[in-house]
Amino acid sequence: MKRIAIYPGSFDPVTNGHVDIVDRARRMFDHVIVGVSQNRSKAVFFSAQDRVDMLRVALKGRSHVSVEHFSDLLASFARRKKASAVVRGLRAVSDFEYEFQMALMNRRLNRRFETVFLMPDEKYTYLSSSLVRQVSMLGGSLRGLVPSVVETALRKRSLTTP
Amino acid sequence: MKRIAIYPGSFDPVTNGHVDIVDRARRMFDHVIVGVSQNRSKAVFFSAQDRVDMLRVALKGRSHVSVEHFSDLLASFARRKKASAVVRGLRAVSDFEYEFQMALMNRRLNRRFETVFLMPDEKYTYLSSSLVRQVSMLGGSLRGLVPSVVETALRKRSLTTP
Amino acid sequence: MKRIAIYPGSFDPVTNGHVDIVDRARRMFDHVIVGVSQNRSKAVFFSAQDRVDMLRVALKGRSHVSVEHFSDLLASFARRKKASAVVRGLRAVSDFEYEFQMALMNRRLNRRFETVFLMPDEKYTYLSSSLVRQVSMLGGSLRGLVPSVVETALRKRSLTTP
Amino acid sequence: MKRIAIYPGSFDPVTNGHVDIVDRARRMFDHVIVGVSQNRSKAVFFSAQDRVDMLRVALKGRSHVSVEHFSDLLASFARRKKASAVVRGLRAVSDFEYEFQMALMNRRLNRRFETVFLMPDEKYTYLSSSLVRQVSMLGGSLRGLVPSVVETALRKRSLTTP
Amino acid sequence: MKRIAIYPGSFDPVTNGHVDIVDRARRMFDHVIVGVSQNRSKAVFFSAQDRVDMLRVALKGRSHVSVEHFSDLLASFARRKKASAVVRGLRAVSDFEYEFQMALMNRRLNRRFETVFLMPDEKYTYLSSSLVRQVSMLGGSLRGLVPSVVETALRKRSLTTP
Amino acid sequence: MKRIAIYPGSFDPVTNGHVDIVDRARRMFDHVIVGVSQNRSKAVFFSAQDRVDMLRVALKGRSHVSVEHFSDLLASFARRKKASAVVRGLRAVSDFEYEFQMALMNRRLNRRFETVFLMPDEKYTYLSSSLVRQVSMLGGSLRGLVPSVVETALRKRSLTTP
Repeated sequence: MKRIAIYPGSFDPVTNGHVDIVDRARRMFDHVIVGVSQNRSKAVFFSAQDRVDMLRVALKGRSHVSVEHFSDLLASFARRKKASAVVRGLRAVSDFEYEFQMALMNRRLNRRFETVFLMPDEKYTYLSSSLVRQVSMLGGSLRGLVPSVVETALRKRSLTTP
Repeated sequence: MKRIAIYPGSFDPVTNGHVDIVDRARRMFDHVIVGVSQNRSKAVFFSAQDRVDMLRVALKGRSHVSVEHFSDLLASFARRKKASAVVRGLRAVSDFEYEFQMALMNRRLNRRFETVFLMPDEKYTYLSSSLVRQVSMLGGSLRGLVPSVVETALRKRSLTTP
Repeated sequence: MKRIAIYPGSFDPVTNGHVDIVDRARRMFDHVIVGVSQNRSKAVFFSAQDRVDMLRVALKGRSHVSVEHFSDLLASFARRKKASAVVRGLRAVSDFEYEFQMALMNRRLNRRFETVFLMPDEKYTYLSSSLVRQVSMLGGSLRGLVPSVVETALRKRSLTTP
Repeated sequence: MKRIAIYPGSFDPVTNGHVDIVDRARRMFDHVIVGVSQNRSKAVFFSAQDRVDMLRVALKGRSHVSVEHFSDLLASFARRKKASAVVRGLRAVSDFEYEFQMALMNRRLNRRFETVFLMPDEKYTYLSSSLVRQVSMLGGSLRGLVPSVVETALRKRSLTTP
Repeated sequence: MKRIAIYPGSFDPVTNGHVDIVDRARRMFDHVIVGVSQNRSKAVFFSAQDRVDMLRVALKGRSHVSVEHFSDLLASFARRKKASAVVRGLRAVSDFEYEFQMALMNRRLNRRFETVFLMPDEKYTYLSSSLVRQVSMLGGSLRGLVPSVVETALRKRSLTTP
Repeated sequence: MKRIAIYPGSFDPVTNGHVDIVDRARRMFDHVIVGVSQNRSKAVFFSAQDRVDMLRVALKGRSHVSVEHFSDLLASFARRKKASAVVRGLRAVSDFEYEFQMALMNRRLNRRFETVFLMPDEKYTYLSSSLVRQVSMLGGSLRGLVPSVVETALRKRSLTTP
């Protein structure tokens, strides 16, 4: 039986820390689906389509990985995709409790489905999408922190935001 | 002297974890007032009146408990109600620091008034009103997590939200 | 029905932070039993009898409080004493998780028995029995941090320890 | 070489906890610049100019300190000001992780520039600008928690807010 | 290629929380080796041989799992066993930081080797080997918390300890 | 006035993370005294003299830094040395609460004396003296984690420990 995992998130935008987790997950599962959530209630910086497109460019050339968006419950998305695991990166204590809450709720909604926590390289400990957006808006360099496709998109975005 | 406690919150909506705390508090105090806060600066999902009504239905048949809303400082509400204690549920480390900050501020505003922390059943550790709202909006089942009056209200709400 | 609470601990030695919690608990319960645990597996600084004696001197003149030692499970001690609650002070996040673990185990061993967490005055946030022992051994002043009976006992102890 | 430190924040509004950190920083550095950030993406309560003005009044008479606002990256502001250190107050675990994330990002953006964490007096542990705004809006007293210029401004503001 | 994982620990003694993690790991990997560490510097309650034996009895009838002890570095043990992952259970924030420290050190000692964190059932959140030892020494019941082979061994042990 | 800071610890043994903090402190103060504590109540791996000697070799060639041991209260040592600050490295949440407790106690024992927290390079986040001792005892490589004088001492020590 093929082992399929979902790595869900808003990826607004994808960072090198996310890519690092994808690579760790690819070594553990037969296939990894990066699931871009469309959260209607949260304001987003990049559209769901842009976020999917940037992920596809960033992950180009990697095998056993695909990118999709989903707008229903993660537990339902996983059932549809026949995935048996959810992968999440854990960087800090503040991640931990939120992640546990979500993982326990997901387990309740879909009993056969396990959340697996992986640890990114320590050089990405301080990296988050929201920090990336902030630094970018203030004109800071993001070299080495995000895929180049994201660097370009952020630069373009800063220029057009008043 | 009658020992009166206030269990304050936004209860947006009430969950079975809240009901569990009410029951623990009822065993310790002569009367428990569930205080529904009307936070003007925070967007709410259900109106204050709906939140009070759902709590009343959910707690129906329980003695030594009443439900009220308040829109001033908790410390003032407690003084008006002659309450000597505030009850709060503690589920996780992230609750802890916020709760402490509030408890110390309340103690400063009303010296005679003590915050008492109770621990819900561990099966409610992962449960929060915001998670309930999220799961409901995405069509997930909440059976066993919220009182049935809330389940019905959430289902109705999901249908009418575009 | 009289509401009896147990405030358990090793109290090795009692600090002013402990006394502060006793006073808060006395306002909430009809009687508070300070329960000094005799932990055979942990090396202690003062004997159980000395710890009980110092607590009795420190709490002299306070009504509705008594001091006892116990060497069985807290859940059994509570049953024997007809206590319905355990009182614990929470100072910091690191307390929190240990306390929760103990509270959940105690609830499992004695279902009718609730753990109630109280918050000491913020001026005692940094105070612990182990810190008191350390400072005392190095000759530091403990004025205002421990009852005077403890100050005297620690001073005597420092002189006789090589 | 003169040692210059920046103490950045939104100071919306300045509290006595902030003033306490300024005083600790002044004892360690030759000059402290309180840097009021103009965060375009975050809704503010007081305008940047009001926040700067209140800080200037609150810090009047203190030597070796100045107040400025900045709207670019902290790392760039520091470079312009020839500052070698950033000062931040740490009150609680929840501060800690956010502060570390920012400090590591700032270090990445400006290698020669160190973040220094100081601890406010424990009586300010529970104090934050957002709690001050909340208590003020609900009519609670802030005596002893904020400089008197802020108390006045908040009282005026409460009266005019519907 | 067969995916082999090691689930290391001292298992002094094994609890139902550990068994729960073994079962989750078995669904994710082709084979799970429960690795009982022989920590020479830490006093143990049960000998390494007893801990291995109790695990074997507790896991009897489960496929794709074996029990071994090891006394060298986990990273070396994993290399010898051709394991590509370490499995660890995460229950609480206090686990989290220690686990991260170990995981980062192991990654440094053996680059190809990933630590995977799984979450036990929430009913085991409060369960630890040290709590089990404590409760047992004080005569408390452990039914439902440990495998029956451990219950028997602990009861025998309590009787013979003075 | 010369600004003198003390960087206290047991340094059992010194790691590259400690050296990193020394270098950050040297940029902020006129002189840094590395204070090796002689904790009589804690078992040590290396003697106080060995720990001082290894630090001196590790810090050789660095200006504005000296190494001393002390066996009294840090607050008294600081007073004797005319130091106005204590420097401590903060790596993780678990450090944080202990450090705060110590810092508040030190401030109480010596009001004029400030604790300053610095953050080591993120590549040392997972590094601690106790982890270094463990890895060394099990034959693991410590290259890049400790000064070479410590690497040699640990290797010699492993050979002679049964």
